[in-house]
Parts: sequence; C-alpha cells; structure tokens
Amino acid sequence: MYRSHNCGELTAANINQEVTLAGWIQKTRNKGFLIWGDLRDRYGVTQLIFDEERTDATVFKRAETLGREFVVQVKGTVIERESKNPKMPTGDIEILVHALTILNEATTPPFTIEDETDGGEDIRMKYRYLDIRRNPVKNSLLFRHKVAMEVRNYLSKEGFIEVETPVLIKSTPEGARDFVVPSRMNEGQFYALPQSPQTFKQLLMVGGMDKYFQIVKCFRDEDLRADRQPEFTQIDCEMAFVEQEDIIQTFEGLTSHLLKELKGVETDKFPRITYDEAMRKYGNDKPDIRFGMEFGALNTVAQHKEFSVFNSAELVVGIAVPNCASYTRKEIDKLIDWVKRPQVGASGMVYVKYNEDGNLKSSVDKFYDADDLKKWADATGAKPGDLILVLSGDTDKTRASMSALRMEMAERLGLRKPDEFAPLWVMDFPLLEWDEETERFHAMHHPFTSPKPEDMPLLETDPAKVRANAYDLVLNGNEIGGGSIRIHDAATQQLMFKYLGFTEAEAKAQFGFLMDAFQYGAPPHGGLAFGFDRLVALLSGQETIRDFIAFPKNNSGRDVMIDAPSKIDEAQLNELNIKLNL
Amino acid sequence: MYRSHNCGELTAANINQEVTLAGWIQKTRNKGFLIWGDLRDRYGVTQLIFDEERTDATVFKRAETLGREFVVQVKGTVIERESKNPKMPTGDIEILVHALTILNEATTPPFTIEDETDGGEDIRMKYRYLDIRRNPVKNSLLFRHKVAMEVRNYLSKEGFIEVETPVLIKSTPEGARDFVVPSRMNEGQFYALPQSPQTFKQLLMVGGMDKYFQIVKCFRDEDLRADRQPEFTQIDCEMAFVEQEDIIQTFEGLTSHLLKELKGVETDKFPRITYDEAMRKYGNDKPDIRFGMEFGALNTVAQHKEFSVFNSAELVVGIAVPNCASYTRKEIDKLIDWVKRPQVGASGMVYVKYNEDGNLKSSVDKFYDADDLKKWADATGAKPGDLILVLSGDTDKTRASMSALRMEMAERLGLRKPDEFAPLWVMDFPLLEWDEETERFHAMHHPFTSPKPEDMPLLETDPAKVRANAYDLVLNGNEIGGGSIRIHDAATQQLMFKYLGFTEAEAKAQFGFLMDAFQYGAPPHGGLAFGFDRLVALLSGQETIRDFIAFPKNNSGRDVMIDAPSKIDEAQLNELNIKLNL
Repeated sequence: MYRSHNCGELTAANINQEVTLAGWIQKTRNKGFLIWGDLRDRYGVTQLIFDEERTDATVFKRAETLGREFVVQVKGTVIERESKNPKMPTGDIEILVHALTILNEATTPPFTIEDETDGGEDIRMKYRYLDIRRNPVKNSLLFRHKVAMEVRNYLSKEGFIEVETPVLIKSTPEGARDFVVPSRMNEGQFYALPQSPQTFKQLLMVGGMDKYFQIVKCFRDEDLRADRQPEFTQIDCEMAFVEQEDIIQTFEGLTSHLLKELKGVETDKFPRITYDEAMRKYGNDKPDIRFGMEFGALNTVAQHKEFSVFNSAELVVGIAVPNCASYTRKEIDKLIDWVKRPQVGASGMVYVKYNEDGNLKSSVDKFYDADDLKKWADATGAKPGDLILVLSGDTDKTRASMSALRMEMAERLGLRKPDEFAPLWVMDFPLLEWDEETERFHAMHHPFTSPKPEDMPLLETDPAKVRANAYDLVLNGNEIGGGSIRIHDAATQQLMFKYLGFTEAEAKAQFGFLMDAFQYGAPPHGGLAFGFDRLVALLSGQETIRDFIAFPKNNSGRDVMIDAPSKIDEAQLNELNIKLNL
Repeated sequence: MYRSHNCGELTAANINQEVTLAGWIQKTRNKGFLIWGDLRDRYGVTQLIFDEERTDATVFKRAETLGREFVVQVKGTVIERESKNPKMPTGDIEILVHALTILNEATTPPFTIEDETDGGEDIRMKYRYLDIRRNPVKNSLLFRHKVAMEVRNYLSKEGFIEVETPVLIKSTPEGARDFVVPSRMNEGQFYALPQSPQTFKQLLMVGGMDKYFQIVKCFRDEDLRADRQPEFTQIDCEMAFVEQEDIIQTFEGLTSHLLKELKGVETDKFPRITYDEAMRKYGNDKPDIRFGMEFGALNTVAQHKEFSVFNSAELVVGIAVPNCASYTRKEIDKLIDWVKRPQVGASGMVYVKYNEDGNLKSSVDKFYDADDLKKWADATGAKPGDLILVLSGDTDKTRASMSALRMEMAERLGLRKPDEFAPLWVMDFPLLEWDEETERFHAMHHPFTSPKPEDMPLLETDPAKVRANAYDLVLNGNEIGGGSIRIHDAATQQLMFKYLGFTEAEAKAQFGFLMDAFQYGAPPHGGLAFGFDRLVALLSGQETIRDFIAFPKNNSGRDVMIDAPSKIDEAQLNELNIKLNL
C-alpha cells in the first residue's frame, strides 16, 4: 500500500505520528524558504509543508518542481498548523514532509480541478476522468452508489431478489426505437438491446419469482432531448399475487426509506391524485406540489361577456401567483413574451392584479368588472397581493402552457426548494392515447397494462375513456417511477393487441412467448420501474442527470471522451453479414 | 394482497388460524370424498384438503377441476395433518379449504415441475419460465442474488464504490470479437458492447475513485464453447495506490468472506503458486488442488534405456493415482483409449502398478527394471497400491493431456468433492504469448498489464520470458478471477503497444483517450475481475453456469424462448444506414 492514511482523516489526534500519504497535488505555494502543498485524494485534502530548515535539501528541491495534479507519495510527521482552517476536516494539522516520491508527473490539466471550474461542459466531457476528480462530480457518483446500496438492501430485506435479465434480446416495433446488434452466428438476424426488461420480469412472475427487482441498464435510440441518455438505468420491480394497492404500499415504503436514510426527511403517507385531477389542477401528469398555484377553472366566470378570445376558447384557466400584484407593466410584458415562446406556446395572456388594498386591476377591464374579477380570484384562490395569470384556448395546449407558466413562476419565486421533497402518486392513467401520425391508439404505458375491469366495455365504444390500473410516482415535478397491474391472461392480452392494431400474426411473432407463458398458469402481477438516474439527481436536489452518470453521452449520443461510436473495418462488417448503406 | 401467508411458513403453531394462500397446484389426489392438493409458491408447498363433509359442495366441485399448474387462491383453516410429513417444513399441517378461487387455468406443462424433471435441456430452455418454477433452478437464482448482495455489502464496507460504466462503447480489435451496434445518429458508425469495462475502470482510477467495483454484464462474440455465454457477468474491481500484494489481500478477503458466509467454510491464507510451477506440477494454470496426483518429472529417470518413445520425448511425466494398482488390463486399456481421444490428445500411455506387496509391474518391463520403476514411484510420490500413469511427448501438449488425465482420475475417484473448497493464487503469468496465426506476440491478459520491472530488459531479447504482475484466483480447478497491476505511465504503455504490433496511429485511434489520461497524473493502480456466473456455480458445488443464469442462450447464441436474434424490417435497416450482405 502506498499510504498509511488517506488525505481526509488526519486531525489533531494524529499529531506527532509518522504517516505516508499519496494523492494529487492540488496546488502549491512557494515562499522561497517554505513550500506548502495541498495533497488531494478521494477522501479530502491535507496540507503538506516543506521547510528549508527542517526538510532535507534534495526533498525540498524536488518539492519545488511539483506542478498541479502531479501524483506523489509523501512520508512525514503530522504537526499542528500555525494558522488553522476550521473549514477543513484536516484543517488543524499539516504534514512536515521528509520524503517525497513523484509517482507520476502531470501535464497542466485543460481546466481547473476545483469545485467551481473554469472548464465548459464540452471540455469537461472530453476529459471526464479529470472532471471526476472535482468534488461535485465525485460526490454525485458516491451518492449514486449510496442510493443503489440502500435500494438493494431495502428490497432484499423485503424479500425481493435481484435477477439479471438478458441484454441481447429481440427487437419489437412497439414503443421507442431499439438499438440493434447484428448476430454473426445467425446470419441476417439481429438482437435488440432492451428498452426495459418488461417481458422478462413478467416471465419471472410466471416462473414463480414473486418479488423481483433489478438495477439495470436500458436503452432507447431516441433523438435526444436535453438531459436524456441513450443508455439509462432503471430500478425495475415486479410482484405477483398483488393488487395495485400492495405495489403502491411497497414502493412508497422504499421511497420513504430513501428520503429518511439519505436526506433525513420524514414523510407522511404520500398524497394521491387521479390523472384527470392532475391535468385539471396542474395541467400536468407530474405536478410539483411543493407549492400551490393550482389551476382555477374560469370558463363559467369568464365566458359571459363580450371578450371573444375567452368565449371562443375550450378552456379558460388561471393561477394566482403569490405576492406578485406589484409586478410592473414591463415585468408583465416580459412574462407575456415568455408565454408566447414556441416552447410554451400560448398566444397571449390576461392578468389581474389583486392589490393589497383589495382592488382588482386587469388587462381586460374593458370587458370585466370588479365582481367578475373577484370571482376569478375566488376560483384561483388568489389573496390580496397576488397576481392572477390567465390563459385560454384548446384544453390540452392551454393546460400545457399554464403548467409551464406555473413552474416558471415557482422557479422565479424560489418555491422549488431543493431540500424539500413532495412525493405524489398519480393514479388511473388512461390506457390508450391517440397517435396523430399513425392514426391509431397506442398504449400509454405499454401493451401489457391492465385496463380497469369496470372500464372494459368502453374499449369498444370510447377507447380514450378507458382507464388503466397504472400509476406514476412523482417527486418535485418529475416522474421518478411508473408502473401498472399487468394483464395476466392470454385472452385479454390478445384482445389488447387487437385494439392496438396488431394482427394476430404480428402479435404472435413478437410476443408469442409471453402469450404462451400465459397459458401455463400466470399469476396476477404488476410492478413499477424507477428512473434511477433521475431519482438520484432529485434526491440530491438537482434536476439534470448528467453529473450522476460517470461517463455520459452528449446530445448526439456520442461519448466524446473515447470518441464513440466510430467506424469499424470492412472485415468486421463482412463477418456480420452487413454493409453500409450511406 | 392475495395471501396472508406464503406456502412455506405454516406450522403446527398456526393450527386453527384462518389463512389465505395463493400459488400453483403442484398435484392433486382425488379419493372421491377427499381431495388433497399440493399448493406451491416460491417459499414452499402446503397441503390443501377438500372434504366432502366439511367443504362446501360448490368448492368441492371446483376442486375436482383443478389441474397441474392452475393458479389458485384458497381461504381455509390450518389443521393438524393425520399423517405428518417430517421432510416438509409445513408437513405437520394442512389447510381445510372453505373458499377456492381459480386465478388462472393452466395447460398441462410440457415437462414436470419437479426437482427431477422429465424435460430435456432444449424444451426446458424454450419454456424457461416453467423451468424456473423448479427448485433446482429457482434456488440457483436465489443463491445468485445472495452472493451478489454479499459481494456488494462486503466491498462497500471496505470503501469500494460501485460505478456504472457505459455499455455503448467503442470497438477495439484487440482480444475477442466485439458485438457492435450501428448508430442511427452517427451515420456509418458503430458502438461496441464492452468485453469488460477495463479502460473505464482505469480512467476512474485516473479520476481519483481509488476503490471501484461493479457487478456488470460483459459481452463477447465468440464461437461458444460449451458453457460459455455471449453475455456474462463480472465482478469488476480496481484500486489505486496499491501494489499487487494489496490487491491479493483485498480479494482474498472477499473470497474468504463469501466462503464463510455462504458455505460456512473457514479458509486459511490461500496458497500461492507461480504460473511456471503450476504448469510443471499440474500442467495447468488453474489446477484443482483438492487432491494430489502432482506431476512427477521422469525425464532423468526414464531416458537412459532403449525405449525410444521416451528418449525422443521433450517431456516424460507421470502421476500416481491412489489405490488403483488393482486396475485390470481391460480397465487400463479403456484408459489408454480415453487418453487417445482427440480432446485429450496423447498418443499412448505407459503404466506402472505399484502393488500392495511392493512389487512394481509396468507395461514397459522390457526396458525398465524394478530399480528404474522405483525411481518413478519416488518421483511421482507413489505408494504401494497406487497406479502410476506416464505420458510423454512435446512439453505443452503432454502437460495438457496429463492434466486432463489427472482431472479425469480425480473425478472417477470422487476426489473433486463439491463441498470442499480449495482456493489458490496463480502468480507471475507471462506477459505475452505467441500467436501462431498472426505470428506475433499477444498480451496474455490484456495490453494494459504491467511487466515485472526486473523483466523489462527481456522485452527486447526474449519477450516470451517476460513475466507480468498478473495473477489469477483459482477455485477447485476453475479460474474464478484474474487481474494485474496496470501500466500507469504513457511511455511504458506506448512501448507495450509497440511490442504488441500496434502502429502509433492505431494505438492513438483506439486508446488515445487512455494515453491522454496517463498524461494528467495517473496513480499506480491495478485490479481484478471475477467471473460472477462461474463463481456462483462453484460456490454451489457445480461447474456449469447455465442454471445460474435466468435466461441463458444456447451454443448458437440464441435465446430459444423469445426466439432471438430475429430479422428486423427494411425500414429499421434503412434508418441505421446498413443493409444485409448475405
């Protein structure tokens, strides 16, 4: 071993001990007769001191050559520091060095290895191994490990077993695009990488493994929106002989445990809301409930006057932004520009200032009187001092715009507190959603989701109305998990494939093994999968996942560090029985 | 929840309790007025009883329809069994059923769901979800989970952190064939699936994560020898600021812990042997040392007579098979046939019977006298009653044949005891091995392995003699882990690529990122990877890995259950900018 201690553990208790440390030179200060160096490793930083009087001349000379990020081993005595640094765990001591070995020299790194670095995103990704030396990235990875261990130990104690499902599976056209892998041994055939282990975990239930989980890599060949990765990690779970309530209890237990163990946060029973209610109240199926600003429905109190914008709208909806009645005209104009951005998509915005003195002042005073506006205030829950913002138009689009506006205002008002955690179950998702492009219904979750038995008749008459036994777990405005009770009999599954537009032959070719399995005694089952990258980020109070992934890819799916993907040679293509088609 | 208890937990202590159970009908016995059923779930089997007198008539009628593998829920009373079964944990009780719900019917399965099934390998693989219901497979998967949890908790407590490395990486022609993944977004380019996270774990060391592990899927597109899988799992580990001894201590600690916790086996310090010694004593770099039969070198005591077979041989070597002097001529002839099989490859075999009375009788009495044969007995450590078997020829081939013979005899004599564990470190592997096909040296482990500093000069003069800081951990004749101290400076790494026949441009294109990383302060580091599938199998006292993998592939790399790989459609090929080349 190159060291007797790490760089984060020596304190006043170690004074006078002889120690050996190894690590990276964070920085040096040379006063001519004294040289200080900060020695860093994974565990912390310890100050080194080389003293012309007390340090051997050769060692002192060598210390003068030390540059940033040199890798060294030092032997020395722990001594008390003259000027202590109470901010550092090792701030009471320093090491009077008597032996110094340079284990490896270092070229000056392309950015500073500091908590606040001068390196931009691109350069840090190219030199990710240097970025990982920085505390924010290092700590994110350490935290990720801690979360994974908590998850595994908790579920294991609850009787779950982790089963590894295969990575080389079969391509299915349902859902997002698959990554595929040409098979050399099976000419002209391809494996696919799993978008999730969905069918395998269901087969494990058929196999009697009634409590399964897996922390597992999944793959989606999508055009990458910001903060999506082509490979991502799920906590994938499934249970047999359970009803929806059992699954919810189980994973609410897990989530509470994580919040308590990792964040010291005690949570009550998680609130629940239906999908319909979530859309009505928040315009969003993953609402952030750390703050209010619930939607007020204004159709009945805003469509009785001559204001054609509202009268022609399918939906008129408002929110009361707390304590913003004092917004200036300029501030409001900027906000109107903001809602008109294509990403938000509103065509305009009406506002009502509910002044502290109780007066109501709006941008539509021409059409509405104080009584009308008071009704809007009541509907949105506005109090004096609040600013009511109103959008109108097509229901779906207006809800989406209003949801974006609500989140934006919360962000600006500092209501999205990273140390506050508000979990929420969203229940009763629709089974199907209409796809404009293919002009048919798609499974909103996936084709194995069970409809609510009482809604089964609607499948023929009004498919969009059919609710599923499907639920999402939402945390601070982000979906962290989602799942459903599955269909477990072959007849219903066959019916479902039919409604989703599969021919019998297609269904058999793609999911024949699952239908077969359902013939041999499938138990009732259901499950849930957490997005592990996002869960870890959210528990850290952050919303971008990239720093919680050791070696992430950029938005073109490239790993810029290793420069992948890359060309492969002709011989390799020939072996795989494929050629390029450019 | 569909059940109040599982099928493995009810005992006499529960008598008179009302319980709800759910599971699969293992079998039924119908006596007309009494029906018994065995209800099975993951946890065990509980006997159900339907009694014409005590059970409701509708329920009784329904019970008559129950077939094998039906999924049912029953409610009933725990009662004492008349004829107890002390072999079953639940053997003291049965459930007098008063409510029976058939949750799912089942077609008769294609093989029996019993510990000893009537199903052959192929059919069991096609219906793997049914095979998993059988105790031997189920218990293997449960055991695998337990091993994984022990590994993670042990390493985590030792300060290791699990870091997920990417699955979509870059193809490198070194080593086995890569599986590749065409990139849709990067036309004409391919990702590769990792054969191991080797370079990433080294980059983590450069990044300061000084103790890394990962239980991780790896991929190799090889023609599959028996009991190899295209996707397999490693416990991948790496440490920085360590020497070989530190790594050996650490993973000897892990292995001892697993043997103790999982098997109740206490182990001493693991013995160590050099590669050269292993080859000399056992003809094998992964010797099974649960038994003796070490090789006796016979060149000096067998090449002084007129027996040209021995005189022309590079190596004459013998083993003493304990207590087999009584082998008949016929038995020995069969053994000679066995060593002549192409898989073993000997051209013949000489034997010496060291009879209980001290007489020595050989198949080469024409050439050798008793004094000669006594010397052979001494060299092989034979005692009266033993049978000495002698092979000769080219050193490498003869060692391999003799190793196979040694294992075969141990197998026949029951010396390979599944409940005995004999770990062993094999050290000082050669750095390079000559490849006949490409007529150049290849890295025996991989191109990042550090040569022993004292052997560096031999790289120019006698490359085959250069030893590496490389070690394997062997258990019961199987390599369970292997690793090395890595090169950590760019200059040595560049030199190594040169010796391995990489041009500078090739080295840069494939491993430029690693060479770059080494410029920025790489610490001394090294590691080890365990073959997890095999480790789990061996700890279970088995040598085939297939039952320890939930959904294994066959020898053509096919998953016969889901029928993968499979064809993909033209549109998908077009999107990926490839076409078939058949």
